[in-house]
Amino acid sequence: MFESAEIDHAIDKDTYDAEVPALREALLEAQFELQQQRRFPVIILINGIEGAGKGETIKLLNEWMDPRLIEVRTFDQQTDEELARPPAWRYWRMLPAKGRMGIFFGNWYSQMLQGRVHGEFKDPRLDQAINAAERLEKMLCDEGALIFKFWFHLSKKQMKARLKSLADDPLHSWRISPLDWQQSQTYDRFVKYGERVLRRTSRVYAPWHVIAGADAHYRSLAVGRILLAGLQGALTRPTIHPEKVSAAPVFPSVDQVNLLDSLDLTLQLDKDDYEEQLITEQARFSGLMRDKRMRRHALVAVFEGNDAAGKGGAIRRVAAALDPRQYNIVPIAAPTEEERAQPYLWRFWRHLPARGKFTVFDRSWYGRVLVERIEGFCSPADWLRAYSEINDFEEQLTDAGVIVVKFWLSIDKQTQLERFEAREKIPFKRFKITDDDWRNRDKWDDYRAAVGDMVDRTSTEIAPWTLVEANDKRWARVKVLRTINRALEEAFEKSDRHESKKHKEKD
Amino acid sequence: MFESAEIDHAIDKDTYDAEVPALREALLEAQFELQQQRRFPVIILINGIEGAGKGETIKLLNEWMDPRLIEVRTFDQQTDEELARPPAWRYWRMLPAKGRMGIFFGNWYSQMLQGRVHGEFKDPRLDQAINAAERLEKMLCDEGALIFKFWFHLSKKQMKARLKSLADDPLHSWRISPLDWQQSQTYDRFVKYGERVLRRTSRVYAPWHVIAGADAHYRSLAVGRILLAGLQGALTRPTIHPEKVSAAPVFPSVDQVNLLDSLDLTLQLDKDDYEEQLITEQARFSGLMRDKRMRRHALVAVFEGNDAAGKGGAIRRVAAALDPRQYNIVPIAAPTEEERAQPYLWRFWRHLPARGKFTVFDRSWYGRVLVERIEGFCSPADWLRAYSEINDFEEQLTDAGVIVVKFWLSIDKQTQLERFEAREKIPFKRFKITDDDWRNRDKWDDYRAAVGDMVDRTSTEIAPWTLVEANDKRWARVKVLRTINRALEEAFEKSDRHESKKHKEKD
Repeated sequence: MFESAEIDHAIDKDTYDAEVPALREALLEAQFELQQQRRFPVIILINGIEGAGKGETIKLLNEWMDPRLIEVRTFDQQTDEELARPPAWRYWRMLPAKGRMGIFFGNWYSQMLQGRVHGEFKDPRLDQAINAAERLEKMLCDEGALIFKFWFHLSKKQMKARLKSLADDPLHSWRISPLDWQQSQTYDRFVKYGERVLRRTSRVYAPWHVIAGADAHYRSLAVGRILLAGLQGALTRPTIHPEKVSAAPVFPSVDQVNLLDSLDLTLQLDKDDYEEQLITEQARFSGLMRDKRMRRHALVAVFEGNDAAGKGGAIRRVAAALDPRQYNIVPIAAPTEEERAQPYLWRFWRHLPARGKFTVFDRSWYGRVLVERIEGFCSPADWLRAYSEINDFEEQLTDAGVIVVKFWLSIDKQTQLERFEAREKIPFKRFKITDDDWRNRDKWDDYRAAVGDMVDRTSTEIAPWTLVEANDKRWARVKVLRTINRALEEAFEKSDRHESKKHKEKD
Repeated sequence: MFESAEIDHAIDKDTYDAEVPALREALLEAQFELQQQRRFPVIILINGIEGAGKGETIKLLNEWMDPRLIEVRTFDQQTDEELARPPAWRYWRMLPAKGRMGIFFGNWYSQMLQGRVHGEFKDPRLDQAINAAERLEKMLCDEGALIFKFWFHLSKKQMKARLKSLADDPLHSWRISPLDWQQSQTYDRFVKYGERVLRRTSRVYAPWHVIAGADAHYRSLAVGRILLAGLQGALTRPTIHPEKVSAAPVFPSVDQVNLLDSLDLTLQLDKDDYEEQLITEQARFSGLMRDKRMRRHALVAVFEGNDAAGKGGAIRRVAAALDPRQYNIVPIAAPTEEERAQPYLWRFWRHLPARGKFTVFDRSWYGRVLVERIEGFCSPADWLRAYSEINDFEEQLTDAGVIVVKFWLSIDKQTQLERFEAREKIPFKRFKITDDDWRNRDKWDDYRAAVGDMVDRTSTEIAPWTLVEANDKRWARVKVLRTINRALEEAFEKSDRHESKKHKEKD
């Protein structure tokens, strides 16, 4: 894989000087076009052998292009805010907006390679990291991002010569490399695992470019040309207008029977039972949230449901059990301008709770496969891929200790009508009913089908959906609280088993 | 000051039960109106004696109102990301957007009181903190924010009884108070300094409300009524439309002589001198940025200037001295939707560099007193108060070790014309010239006057303006780099003197 990069590639100064001005001008032109279009972001990943000119090349690119449109990000030591959240959070928060370029040093590849080379973990975990990187990049590309992955290479001999000359140079001698590159073994391991990573993560939509790093002229021109070709290609590629895509493919069920039919909407609680059970579950919830095992977890509760199904009321009963300092409620409405300039899931990543905290999403990332699907706000390709993107997102949450509970509050059509009419009569509830609500009601069957598909595809063992019979508000509120409590208890028991297993292994 | 709150205030259950439903409904109504108008944010500061019902009251408010529109924030231990920036950064990043309510526990008052009561500092620093709080709140109110400051009070006897009952209650016994409230002396000191703080920070635009905390019915109704009255008042107050305000007051100088006249725009460097001096200054800059004293500082460089004065070129020469991982360039254009929902300075606070880092602002907070003043994008009152707000902002930066350098790149009208015409002819520079640029040119004299006022009012010892003669780009670029280098050296020398003084004091 690296053989070609170990051949002597060199470009003489005259050739270089002759080519650079036109290349620079074309790059600048492409960069401004990128900014004008604001159609996609550019993400450049920088990896490779120590001393192969990574920093120098990026410095040069910043000189050639307009550095005001480029964000260079280095991911060193995680901050405590990053450590309290899923690992990918630090990358999501640094993604460049549409129209801008982000250059990532110390990215996900650096981190998986360092871990493996240092022996912090073995191949199975490296492979997991590789798969995670692939899913992330696939999603970014599907969202329109243009990704360049550069591997700067040197042969072992070239590297040793280079490190020696750097050490002799006072401008560079202060640099400390993260891996001990002086050791011959480090190089071998880095190249070995580098090969494995590159082989498995070079995809049509985000290929690796291996750059021979020994000759500055060669590597600069190589990187510049690759960037230019990629940028020009992407800038002239036509946009896909979601509205021009033909109607969403439907998955009609053979017998029209839907999961929602299996709900017994007559379930109810009388007032006394409700009050007793509600207080019991609230006390239980309050206790669980103060449990010291909660410090290793975070809690995310997603509320979706028919309009007027009682999401707000249920959320208030959940919140009422806690001190307001313990939770955060995020109402999801139309995305803001900054959110629209980012991949779809960005606006949910930014609100993820830190360890020990609880976030309620009042509507959520499932909007993609509900309202956006039905209203045609995104293309069928977009919402179809959303199922697996969402599963992947939730897996990242649970892997990081976040407990994810998801509710669909379900009412029948007649109950909705009665609630709409009642709301219109009560002054302080008028705000809660809009023309949109009436329009959505006309699409009742579309929503019904979309909910069925959503639950089929995203109710997973790690983050199952709970369908809540919500014709009776009391029943719904108690069921919601009880479900959260069970999820917390299960997660704590799992932690306990895990701890006691670790303990036994030590003995 | 607290006498009235130590009288027995109590409201019986019947009166309370009779009043609450209407109060709740009115609060909900006000809250939705707030959301609809999206005209201002509401900030609620919670302070006072331990055990006086702060948490309980806010919990109740969250039950009465729609918790989805309320953000409760607690400021405990600073995170490492917060510690690397000026102290107020943690509050700015948590400000509620227009239309929403933010409740701040552990806010600036809590922090100054804890510091003083614990003896971490003496009265002069308490007074500084008081002044800083006042400036912050004045600015927030001028930006439209509605601020409520609640002090929950208890007499010493009431507090002791309350702490005892909390300690006996298993739901509360786990709570550890930040100050050791069991000690009688702590209470006395807290009340003493609390009085000083309240006395000096109760202003018409943000008054303190002292709430007797012993009786739950009383304190809940009191807080609810105050909130309601304040909200209703603010919601019905007419908006001031900036466009309806009469033309900006001008400060005509008596003799029309302006600071800009004192610049010798014929200053220039020939090519050889330029190349030698540029390389020298770049090397010096690179060395200074790697100096270990830089770890205690951050660097902010502001670039303003006439259109086509060469800001971009100067920024590129500054950037070229460094590794791109060391700096961050923030181009300032029209604010985004999220930025418009916040006080003016919010969009600069969010980009402040952490310690050791360098941020270039390509245009800056001075837009308020330049383009916004001239184009009438804000009212005269807004840009007139901006001078002192900006001085305050920059003082906070320098107090936190940030080195602030500010450049106005100045060219004459003829030079600008030549550069505009040249840009229109070069393909990859066409992007840089827009109709706006030609329109701005028509307002040359307005800008000239605004720059004069700006420099007069905001060139301070801690963050002076450097006017740069920029008809000759070479001269300008070298002067910019040299100025930055001098600022860094001066700051380092000051640090050294400070350190050696501390050292001597220890000996």
